[in-house]
Amino acid sequence: MDPDFSALDDHLADAGLDGYLVDADGANSTQRYLSGFAAPDPFTTVYTPDATAILVSGLEFGRAKTDSRADDVSRLADYDYRELASEHGTEEAKARVVAAWLDDLGVDSVATPDRFPLGPADRLRKRDVGVTPDTDDVVTGIRARKTPSEIDHIRDTQRANEGAMRAAEALLREADVAADGSADPVLHHDGSALTSERVKTEIESTLLEHGCGLDETIVACGADAADPHNRGSGPLRPDEPIIVDIFPRSKTTGYHGDMTRTFVVGDPNDTVSEWFDRTHEAFDAAFDAVEPGVTGAAVHDAVCDVYEGAGVPTLRSDPTAETGFIHSTGHGVGLDVHELPRVAPDGNELRPGHVITVEPGLYDPSVGGVRIEDLMVVTDDGYENLTEYPIGLRV
Amino acid sequence: MDPDFSALDDHLADAGLDGYLVDADGANSTQRYLSGFAAPDPFTTVYTPDATAILVSGLEFGRAKTDSRADDVSRLADYDYRELASEHGTEEAKARVVAAWLDDLGVDSVATPDRFPLGPADRLRKRDVGVTPDTDDVVTGIRARKTPSEIDHIRDTQRANEGAMRAAEALLREADVAADGSADPVLHHDGSALTSERVKTEIESTLLEHGCGLDETIVACGADAADPHNRGSGPLRPDEPIIVDIFPRSKTTGYHGDMTRTFVVGDPNDTVSEWFDRTHEAFDAAFDAVEPGVTGAAVHDAVCDVYEGAGVPTLRSDPTAETGFIHSTGHGVGLDVHELPRVAPDGNELRPGHVITVEPGLYDPSVGGVRIEDLMVVTDDGYENLTEYPIGLRV
Repeated sequence: MDPDFSALDDHLADAGLDGYLVDADGANSTQRYLSGFAAPDPFTTVYTPDATAILVSGLEFGRAKTDSRADDVSRLADYDYRELASEHGTEEAKARVVAAWLDDLGVDSVATPDRFPLGPADRLRKRDVGVTPDTDDVVTGIRARKTPSEIDHIRDTQRANEGAMRAAEALLREADVAADGSADPVLHHDGSALTSERVKTEIESTLLEHGCGLDETIVACGADAADPHNRGSGPLRPDEPIIVDIFPRSKTTGYHGDMTRTFVVGDPNDTVSEWFDRTHEAFDAAFDAVEPGVTGAAVHDAVCDVYEGAGVPTLRSDPTAETGFIHSTGHGVGLDVHELPRVAPDGNELRPGHVITVEPGLYDPSVGGVRIEDLMVVTDDGYENLTEYPIGLRV
Repeated sequence: MDPDFSALDDHLADAGLDGYLVDADGANSTQRYLSGFAAPDPFTTVYTPDATAILVSGLEFGRAKTDSRADDVSRLADYDYRELASEHGTEEAKARVVAAWLDDLGVDSVATPDRFPLGPADRLRKRDVGVTPDTDDVVTGIRARKTPSEIDHIRDTQRANEGAMRAAEALLREADVAADGSADPVLHHDGSALTSERVKTEIESTLLEHGCGLDETIVACGADAADPHNRGSGPLRPDEPIIVDIFPRSKTTGYHGDMTRTFVVGDPNDTVSEWFDRTHEAFDAAFDAVEPGVTGAAVHDAVCDVYEGAGVPTLRSDPTAETGFIHSTGHGVGLDVHELPRVAPDGNELRPGHVITVEPGLYDPSVGGVRIEDLMVVTDDGYENLTEYPIGLRV
């Protein structure tokens, strides 16, 4: 089932533009979304209300015809690229080919993503193609609402993610504290210190077996965990909260999962236990708040209400807070791990098909960090949690 | 040791421009190269002959000050970003901040990479900053010549790569042919069919243990191997050439390795054996040809000479050839897995510090494919092979 592109059609009609042009490789999510094609080198896609057309190198032509969602696939050679390149150089030749191809498609003016490449845009403008970057990025709004098959892709990645979380939790459960009387004891596993790096490798190996990959993952203990953007490093310690945040991507579909758990090996202190309970409560309050028509801002407010009710600072109660709840409640997830909608103070209306995270957390360098995160899809009458993993502090 | 930026200084002087501006995240190789910083979100770097300055969010400020190679680190908040964003929106606010920051640095006009983002460029132009995309990309030429520490990074990744190749070869060596009398026998390992996917997982797991990752790898057998861009899939077969091409990236340094071997489990037929010997000969001829001042084109010609002397078609002897030697001899390797210089018909002079692959190969769907690839650095008086892995067809 194709996405609903009516918002893009409206944008083009309002702006008086013929099409929406993308020049990027398949790692660019808007390119992959519009073209349905994941070539490793940049290629060109133009969407019009009538059809989607792509222009690729001869090398990608066969695969583009079978794999892409384009109605029309052309190749550079159809427009004498090689001859033009030997006369004018490769970049000018590409611009001339794209201009001729757009002309054949009846496209004289285009909207583009705000980060469309400048050189190709300047060269098209010189050939009298109107090129207008779309700063508000209407396609990211369309991408935010997932079709049933996109939701299945995200669910599949989240299943792999749960396997990785299980592997990480198992390593922690098997760990023990070295009985060396150290003043700063660390966890051990198989006779050596259990480090953040060791747990991350276990996570990544597990994801790999399930056809997923990741660029980064967070396994952060102690003061590391108190910084929401610290990825964590070095030995893990008993009795301290360990944040495990995994956001993998399917190598096949390109869709992400996202989940966080916080674990303590041994005995959490009272503050950490209290933080965990409050965060679980805030997490539940966010879920209770989600339904179509409610704003991301209202879901965020539900989390702030719980924390502030317990006397914990939030960025809502104190915009300069450096401890407490110091980030947003969540974000959309899809081909990008961070995309629309926002579940934050400026979050707009949630609508069916929006896939979002809910991830309240508390941070203080003197305590550490606690965060709980699930992934859900907004449905016609509420939500469906796409995550199947228990929530508990002690391993 | 910093790279030699004199070619960029000359380019700016010739073009009458004050600096070179990059707006990209740390995954962009030119951004990482100029800034020495690998932030996950886009940030802005300006190089001038006097200094390199970067502009980051508050979130990245501390890390940018310690990790980047910039002489000067500023943050958006230094230019009232939050107030501007609430009045004008985030993108316009960023443009105003960048324009004010450039003004403080005395920069009125900039060259940019050809694929600099269009929206930010248009907004800077509106604020009277001259923005000229550099189509010929002088920085990629600078990036091609590696400093001693960059060569060490590449060598380290190639060491990890050799470990992965050993793991792949070991799987093949341990494989056996199912004695089921099938007309189309496949390799087995631990009781199940040994597939391309299984070998790739072994490769990726091994790389992971060595701190490296990859997006793709090639383990291609039979007709798959006859297409140089096919990544391979499904069961591997005895007596057929299996191409294993691995191009990992260090997660720490960002620098790549690259190596290919071709293996046969069982008995290669006469054509495959002959192809392997010719390819090894072409490979040696390419190495013999490399020294500073020789062009990439001449190295490519040395390979074509060997193949054509043996009566094998090349793209040089027949530009429409679909079998034989149907790609270039090699490419530069660094932060990008494909970068300058070219070792191809249009390859320019090789110079000390250029890190290149040499990877001749032969392809025919009725035979399969054979390719041998090592990675080398051009030195003051010749070259140093950065690869330590034996070359042999039978496992």
